[in-house]
Amino acid sequence: MTMYEIIEKKRDGKKLTKEEMEFFIQGYTKDEVKDYQASALLMAMFLKGLDEEETFWMTDAMRRSGETVDLSMIPGIKVDKHSTGGVGDKTTLIVAPLAAACGVPIAKMSGRGLGFTGGTVDKMESIPGFRTSLKPEEFLELVKTVGMSVIGQTAHIAAADKKLYALRDVTATVDNMSLIAASIMSKKLASGSDAIVLDVKTGDGAFMERQEDAEALGRLMVAMGEAAGKKTAAVITDMNQPLGKAVGNGLEVMEAIDVLKGCGPEDITELALTLAGLMICAGEKAATPEEGRQMASEALKSGRGLEKLQQFIRGQGGDDGVIRDYGRFPQAAYHRQVVCERDGFVESLKARTVGIASQHAGAGRQTKEDSIDLSAGILLKRKVGDAVKKGELLAEVMGNDPKKVELAAEEVKRAFIIGAGAVTAPPLVKKVLMSGK
Amino acid sequence: MTMYEIIEKKRDGKKLTKEEMEFFIQGYTKDEVKDYQASALLMAMFLKGLDEEETFWMTDAMRRSGETVDLSMIPGIKVDKHSTGGVGDKTTLIVAPLAAACGVPIAKMSGRGLGFTGGTVDKMESIPGFRTSLKPEEFLELVKTVGMSVIGQTAHIAAADKKLYALRDVTATVDNMSLIAASIMSKKLASGSDAIVLDVKTGDGAFMERQEDAEALGRLMVAMGEAAGKKTAAVITDMNQPLGKAVGNGLEVMEAIDVLKGCGPEDITELALTLAGLMICAGEKAATPEEGRQMASEALKSGRGLEKLQQFIRGQGGDDGVIRDYGRFPQAAYHRQVVCERDGFVESLKARTVGIASQHAGAGRQTKEDSIDLSAGILLKRKVGDAVKKGELLAEVMGNDPKKVELAAEEVKRAFIIGAGAVTAPPLVKKVLMSGK
Repeated sequence: MTMYEIIEKKRDGKKLTKEEMEFFIQGYTKDEVKDYQASALLMAMFLKGLDEEETFWMTDAMRRSGETVDLSMIPGIKVDKHSTGGVGDKTTLIVAPLAAACGVPIAKMSGRGLGFTGGTVDKMESIPGFRTSLKPEEFLELVKTVGMSVIGQTAHIAAADKKLYALRDVTATVDNMSLIAASIMSKKLASGSDAIVLDVKTGDGAFMERQEDAEALGRLMVAMGEAAGKKTAAVITDMNQPLGKAVGNGLEVMEAIDVLKGCGPEDITELALTLAGLMICAGEKAATPEEGRQMASEALKSGRGLEKLQQFIRGQGGDDGVIRDYGRFPQAAYHRQVVCERDGFVESLKARTVGIASQHAGAGRQTKEDSIDLSAGILLKRKVGDAVKKGELLAEVMGNDPKKVELAAEEVKRAFIIGAGAVTAPPLVKKVLMSGK
Repeated sequence: MTMYEIIEKKRDGKKLTKEEMEFFIQGYTKDEVKDYQASALLMAMFLKGLDEEETFWMTDAMRRSGETVDLSMIPGIKVDKHSTGGVGDKTTLIVAPLAAACGVPIAKMSGRGLGFTGGTVDKMESIPGFRTSLKPEEFLELVKTVGMSVIGQTAHIAAADKKLYALRDVTATVDNMSLIAASIMSKKLASGSDAIVLDVKTGDGAFMERQEDAEALGRLMVAMGEAAGKKTAAVITDMNQPLGKAVGNGLEVMEAIDVLKGCGPEDITELALTLAGLMICAGEKAATPEEGRQMASEALKSGRGLEKLQQFIRGQGGDDGVIRDYGRFPQAAYHRQVVCERDGFVESLKARTVGIASQHAGAGRQTKEDSIDLSAGILLKRKVGDAVKKGELLAEVMGNDPKKVELAAEEVKRAFIIGAGAVTAPPLVKKVLMSGK
């Protein structure tokens, strides 16, 4: 078996075998397969496609290419959650405490933000003292005692993915369903949970702009999860406008706390309950997602979700006083108001543009090496469907560099499309995909 | 403009611009474009195709990527000839003297053999003393005084092609019409001749096994030549059986001399006259290819072709005594006869198998670094259509390593397919392609 033969086979549209996929992934991880052969194969895969079986073999080979986490010493069904990335997506900080409060152990690894999308690890770091890097034994101990822990993902998980992603990123082979599914699922499968709930975003601010693509990706990832013997579900959700009203690291954690206090925006509360319901069901603490949702809703109303968040923050060294005193979060020196210029209705509020604005304000990175301003971001005062009047506040932009804040404010203004007629916001949860049923 | 954008564009099946092709080729030649980006683009080109204009832009950028030869100080229309490679193809050593004898200046660069196909440079080196590497001024002087010179191609001609070919060779992107045409024509165009005659082989022993592919390649190369302002013609010729009866370096030079003496095999004589006719016409020494062929035929009969070969050999330091005394060529120590095992007719004589046999005997290289045995090779005694009897000689294999000769003889035996019924050999010249007419 040679890489040449494997490239030639996929070039000619033929199906690769499990062994060939293994040869490629293991060889590439060990630097035995050259970048130029890998990139030729990736382009052939991109253009000729991989079927479900090939995608699974690739995912599975990638899963085994690095460290795999063993969570077996934690009793119960551990449930993981993953979002394909969006703007204002702070759901992990809401659903993990809700599910944990309902008895589902959460041992989760999260990523950092890149480009216009945020990452949970950055968000958590806006809490003074919070540690996102724990020793494995600390991590496991917290899951056992508190019921949940969220840490930064190490480079050792699915090692092939890191190398492959860097190569795809410079060879125009990112945007392919099978390669995306293999990248996400190899990491999820290596992270050791027993069940996985996926939040696949679609719309202007998502990787998959078209809903049919998001659904196809969701279905493929559910199939990959199930093929690996893990209960897997996916929710297709709207990312045409940002989720909730806060975009930016500290601002989003405050909004997550608001939701757990019962006073958060309706859309994100709604999505969080749906996701938590699916997680509670996957963790076999409820018979159906609806029952799970009911349990999550009770955990929210009773304050048990908020309490779990507090234990979680304290457990990872963070100042849990942030829950009652938002003044303890990093504060931005400059605030800039974005005002409406005409009467009408918010017809659309472009998530991607808001994400870019937040990045401009200092909340995001352009390259992995950039540092970020944890206080920077945007508070949206109006969302799609809202009536607006000339002179009314649309949003507030904050940060520590007045020039950047100004630039971001201009961007936010562009994100709001004001029309004359009344519009209704699109439904947030578009579809729930569950395997085999 | 970035390589990423160029890869993405071709990946999506869009047409590249002249500037983008230039950016890729010049950047890759200067090592500014990485191998892994080049290989991803080559695979996208392979699978999505290049149109005629893109192929020309690529060819032209490759032509300018290295040294270009200036033949303008040589009076007259310089005519080049190229064969896509086959088994037993010694036509250059016949057509160049014939065309030169008719007043067409020949300033040609040739390659070495690789795999089962031979190369003119190796063949010429079987002549004692012959130098295939000359200083540019020597080369030009010989073309002026003798009327012809043939030297080895330097790595500086179309520098991008050398790098690209090495990359294509390990990424399964060799076998594409546009990439093949760009590779061949960039070198031909950089070599400075005013007109080009191409011999595109088709059949079992050729790169293009199917005639329609050979015709498409021929047409594309003719279009590339004409787009560059050079008169270009292509001949599609059969390579299902070897050309002539000699395969192997020294053996083929002897056969070329035989042809110029008027006692060579009919097939190769026929092809040589056709090619020489086209060259003489392209060089404007004849009004039509038919008139050119007539002139070539006269040069052959009168001995002026042989005389030109003699001057050429002497001019490049070779022992021109080889013309009357074949004993001056390297002689093989071992000869092995291949005998017919049944009565019948030669139904087919597989060119590729004979080429591989010749390589086994020591006449060819597997890798560019291998040394070769200039005396080794095969003399075919029967060809397609010939009646044979059990016990009759089919071929003679020679070389200096008895084991290798034995192995080669087994291979030659397999190359002969003997049938019961009479067959006629397929026509050698299948088609002549000339531009715009």
